Amino acid sequence: MLESGSVRTKNAAMICMKNIGLYSIAALAYFFIGYNLMYTEVNGVIGSLKFLYGPTSSEIALMAGQEGAAADVLKNGAGYAAMSDWFFQMVFVATAASIVSGALAERVKMWSFFLFTLFLTAIIYPVVGAWTWGGGWLTQLGFSDFAGSTIVHSTGGWAALAGLIVVGPRLGKFRRDGTARPTPPSNILVVTLGVFILWFGWIGFNGGSQLGLASVKDAVAMSIVIVNTNLAAASGIIVALALARPVMGRIDLFAILNGAIAGLVSITARPDITEHYWAVIIGAVGGAIVILGLKAMEKVKLDDVVGAVPAHLFAGIWGTLAVSITGGAPIHIQLLGIVSIGATVFAVSFGLWKLMELTIKTRVSYDVERLGQDAAELRMESYPEFVLMPDFEEDD
Amino acid sequence: MLESGSVRTKNAAMICMKNIGLYSIAALAYFFIGYNLMYTEVNGVIGSLKFLYGPTSSEIALMAGQEGAAADVLKNGAGYAAMSDWFFQMVFVATAASIVSGALAERVKMWSFFLFTLFLTAIIYPVVGAWTWGGGWLTQLGFSDFAGSTIVHSTGGWAALAGLIVVGPRLGKFRRDGTARPTPPSNILVVTLGVFILWFGWIGFNGGSQLGLASVKDAVAMSIVIVNTNLAAASGIIVALALARPVMGRIDLFAILNGAIAGLVSITARPDITEHYWAVIIGAVGGAIVILGLKAMEKVKLDDVVGAVPAHLFAGIWGTLAVSITGGAPIHIQLLGIVSIGATVFAVSFGLWKLMELTIKTRVSYDVERLGQDAAELRMESYPEFVLMPDFEEDD
Amino acid sequence: MLESGSVRTKNAAMICMKNIGLYSIAALAYFFIGYNLMYTEVNGVIGSLKFLYGPTSSEIALMAGQEGAAADVLKNGAGYAAMSDWFFQMVFVATAASIVSGALAERVKMWSFFLFTLFLTAIIYPVVGAWTWGGGWLTQLGFSDFAGSTIVHSTGGWAALAGLIVVGPRLGKFRRDGTARPTPPSNILVVTLGVFILWFGWIGFNGGSQLGLASVKDAVAMSIVIVNTNLAAASGIIVALALARPVMGRIDLFAILNGAIAGLVSITARPDITEHYWAVIIGAVGGAIVILGLKAMEKVKLDDVVGAVPAHLFAGIWGTLAVSITGGAPIHIQLLGIVSIGATVFAVSFGLWKLMELTIKTRVSYDVERLGQDAAELRMESYPEFVLMPDFEEDD
Repeated sequence: MLESGSVRTKNAAMICMKNIGLYSIAALAYFFIGYNLMYTEVNGVIGSLKFLYGPTSSEIALMAGQEGAAADVLKNGAGYAAMSDWFFQMVFVATAASIVSGALAERVKMWSFFLFTLFLTAIIYPVVGAWTWGGGWLTQLGFSDFAGSTIVHSTGGWAALAGLIVVGPRLGKFRRDGTARPTPPSNILVVTLGVFILWFGWIGFNGGSQLGLASVKDAVAMSIVIVNTNLAAASGIIVALALARPVMGRIDLFAILNGAIAGLVSITARPDITEHYWAVIIGAVGGAIVILGLKAMEKVKLDDVVGAVPAHLFAGIWGTLAVSITGGAPIHIQLLGIVSIGATVFAVSFGLWKLMELTIKTRVSYDVERLGQDAAELRMESYPEFVLMPDFEEDD
Repeated sequence: MLESGSVRTKNAAMICMKNIGLYSIAALAYFFIGYNLMYTEVNGVIGSLKFLYGPTSSEIALMAGQEGAAADVLKNGAGYAAMSDWFFQMVFVATAASIVSGALAERVKMWSFFLFTLFLTAIIYPVVGAWTWGGGWLTQLGFSDFAGSTIVHSTGGWAALAGLIVVGPRLGKFRRDGTARPTPPSNILVVTLGVFILWFGWIGFNGGSQLGLASVKDAVAMSIVIVNTNLAAASGIIVALALARPVMGRIDLFAILNGAIAGLVSITARPDITEHYWAVIIGAVGGAIVILGLKAMEKVKLDDVVGAVPAHLFAGIWGTLAVSITGGAPIHIQLLGIVSIGATVFAVSFGLWKLMELTIKTRVSYDVERLGQDAAELRMESYPEFVLMPDFEEDD
Repeated sequence: MLESGSVRTKNAAMICMKNIGLYSIAALAYFFIGYNLMYTEVNGVIGSLKFLYGPTSSEIALMAGQEGAAADVLKNGAGYAAMSDWFFQMVFVATAASIVSGALAERVKMWSFFLFTLFLTAIIYPVVGAWTWGGGWLTQLGFSDFAGSTIVHSTGGWAALAGLIVVGPRLGKFRRDGTARPTPPSNILVVTLGVFILWFGWIGFNGGSQLGLASVKDAVAMSIVIVNTNLAAASGIIVALALARPVMGRIDLFAILNGAIAGLVSITARPDITEHYWAVIIGAVGGAIVILGLKAMEKVKLDDVVGAVPAHLFAGIWGTLAVSITGGAPIHIQLLGIVSIGATVFAVSFGLWKLMELTIKTRVSYDVERLGQDAAELRMESYPEFVLMPDFEEDD
């Protein structure tokens, strides 16, 4: 939603298509390959190559009516049902893919993007995920990233950055003198709604993964996570609001909404801290980073349509470091995690984008881009009647 | 939402009105009459004719402060609170009514539609519901439909089909040579949002009804349902995406979104299967059915605005049969359920639409339809400033 | 959402900005000051002035790994985690602020509104909240307001009313002869979506606050609350639908959506009544009140853009009185609560608006208002391409 409202009208339907497609691809790729690669029998670097994922044998026994199996589920499980975990993880991997989609909107070829999504969700993300959440070498060293500042958001951000460099900016985004031309979102209401949904979804996700088999401790932990998440988003917004005019030259709603996202991403690595004022500080720094990052991206002429790289990559790095600042993990391990994951994801993604560029191309043709992808590729307009015309003809 | 974005601009406000109206009517009709008819003292064919529905007597005692009543609630109850069940069932009955609304958009008379909704939610749906979920004759024979592929979606689909035949296509939908004229949705972003809300709502509903008084078994069952629901929607989309160009002649976002819905409807009859690859297969077939169904509807000149009949009725029949394919129920009983419910709902609905056609009419006048219902009946436009004009006049 | 779709196009981005800003301000103000003022060591009239709010010491011990602390949390707590309560309360206070935002849309200055929000959420709301939910003098007398008909909705409504009087109507809202000029919402789909989100959010909130540490009694209570909330909204809509043509002269979708809100507000003071038919009656009266209230507001020339005062203040008063009608509290105490909270909130708010009017002004300049706040203050349009034009220039 955030993305589809952010692009110019002529490409809105394509964005809807890409997002619903990427979510489907992520769900199937992660079900068939990714999850096992990330979580099953991880040997330090990589998990199992077997296909498909399913409930545990005790869970299947329980569902088949063996009530005694409930004790086994509780004893062997991680405190939640196997498939609940799959679902949460799948939404995370889809989030990473959607970051790429947002950055490259309005000129990337649909099929190339889908192919990249397949690799990202089946292989790239699961491998770095195995190093961390899968219990691999980074986790063994003490790397800490509660809900994915690095694993989800920076991974998506690095993949997006590689794509931005290979695919190049939109036609006409940068003037001959090198200054950026504003490309206002087509529907700011939709963008705002998208941010609110994201915000509350985030609260649900940061909090909700504890809900499976609830205890008093889980309920308290969840309440702490929810409040930190909320405070970080709020202070990200306030700081972005304060910095918008001095840095960007105007109060830019779009930048301020990215402040909310940056606040959320920043707190994601350690949302369970019990001193809530830290959440305010961490989110505030995230809000500052996104405003400065948006300005910096324009300076280096990278055309990131929704501001995905500042909001997810830059704020994700900050959030991962903030874990050390608040005493949650040694800083050199956090840095090692940031660099090793960043280098891997960026290098592999860059290679993949380059390979596609040399073979099937990554960018729509000049004519399609000028006309807009909706009309040219999909033959459908998002708001058709404002553009073309009569839906009722006289010959009937 | 799905529906309101799908119609042409001139009728969007009317759709909003109809949906908020139908939801209200369904809530009250199901509270006063429908629920008891469906669930209370079902004698095989029909339930109790008494009015109103409320908490059980042990629940009322518990709320009044008698802590000892908690044991009675657990012992006598179905594992969830009486009114929780009412709420879930009410959303199901409103879903059935909204299927009719979607199919007949842009030409059905508001009051006729509301009257039909009243009958559907107070009587038609509760009676066939009593045969199945109410414990009536079909359930006694072994008919299985976990979350309503037949009971909710096919029932809505048959009622919509009867309406389509009586009310007829929109003016100008079919050309003189019999080919269909495309009527693109007015706001594809809203449609996409609608599908995403539906998707996650579905997950909540398929999963959530177990949440009342949770146990380990419920948590595991819920996780399995959520994953199947999600995989079926994803594979419905992928198949619809693959078939769109060969069958429809273009990559049609609208058709692909219907692929998601068809995948969801297909898995609804048996979302609790523990072999998840079946969900992928069942959803994929659903996606194929909806694309072929959309084409077939055009061939027989039925003008179903949102594709409700292919997505809900055709996919609902498939989903009910798929229960047998995966070993969940004998196929002749599933077929008996499909036919008996289908024949009953279609015949009664057809009679009702015909009766209204002969008395109060079911269709807006020629002028209202040409002008759009928003301006003519509601005197309000969905996007007024693009259409009429100045909201500020000089005389102030 | 409700608000942003309700205004004219030229001001939609400003509304998004104000809402995301007010939510952030409310979160931080309530975290730093408001919550303690409302709930901590309330002495009858006012709570503690200490800054910040956090988990209880037993909760921190539990999170630090002392499993034995779980018993303390259960024994000392209110049946839910400390920070869960904070989060719920914070959403309530943000709701009160958004009522003010909705009423004053399209002409209030952004910074003045933010300043008012700061006072409302840090001081005004927490003080009257301390009298009631904080356990202060009104609660000690027996005042009953389960989920905030008076505390949340009337408080917001009185603050909005004071603002309406000071700020004045929009340019051109009232003609020279005193009749009101209709200002149709820019995007009725968005408004409808907003109401549906509100509706389900309300159900979640009225029901959800019980969820923390669940018991059988909580589950039953929640189910009762959900059903009453839903029935009241439905009957509010039906009555508004029936009264719209006789009173307003047309079937006005906007008025009918306010019927839903009024139904929700009306039941909010006593959603836990076990005789559900009362919810139908209470919501129906709420629906009637909002239609008559919208008409009355026009008569006295108060320009309430979204109908916030009728839907929140008038229906909130009715809901608080309805507690007595259904036998939940003595009527003279309910009246005392309505009057004392109303007088306090209105007087303080009026003083604050007047003070701002005399110093920093409360209203945008004539030119800004005519042009629309989006272009003038934010330099961004909600739907830019329909208004300005080419996003692609020939010099590239």
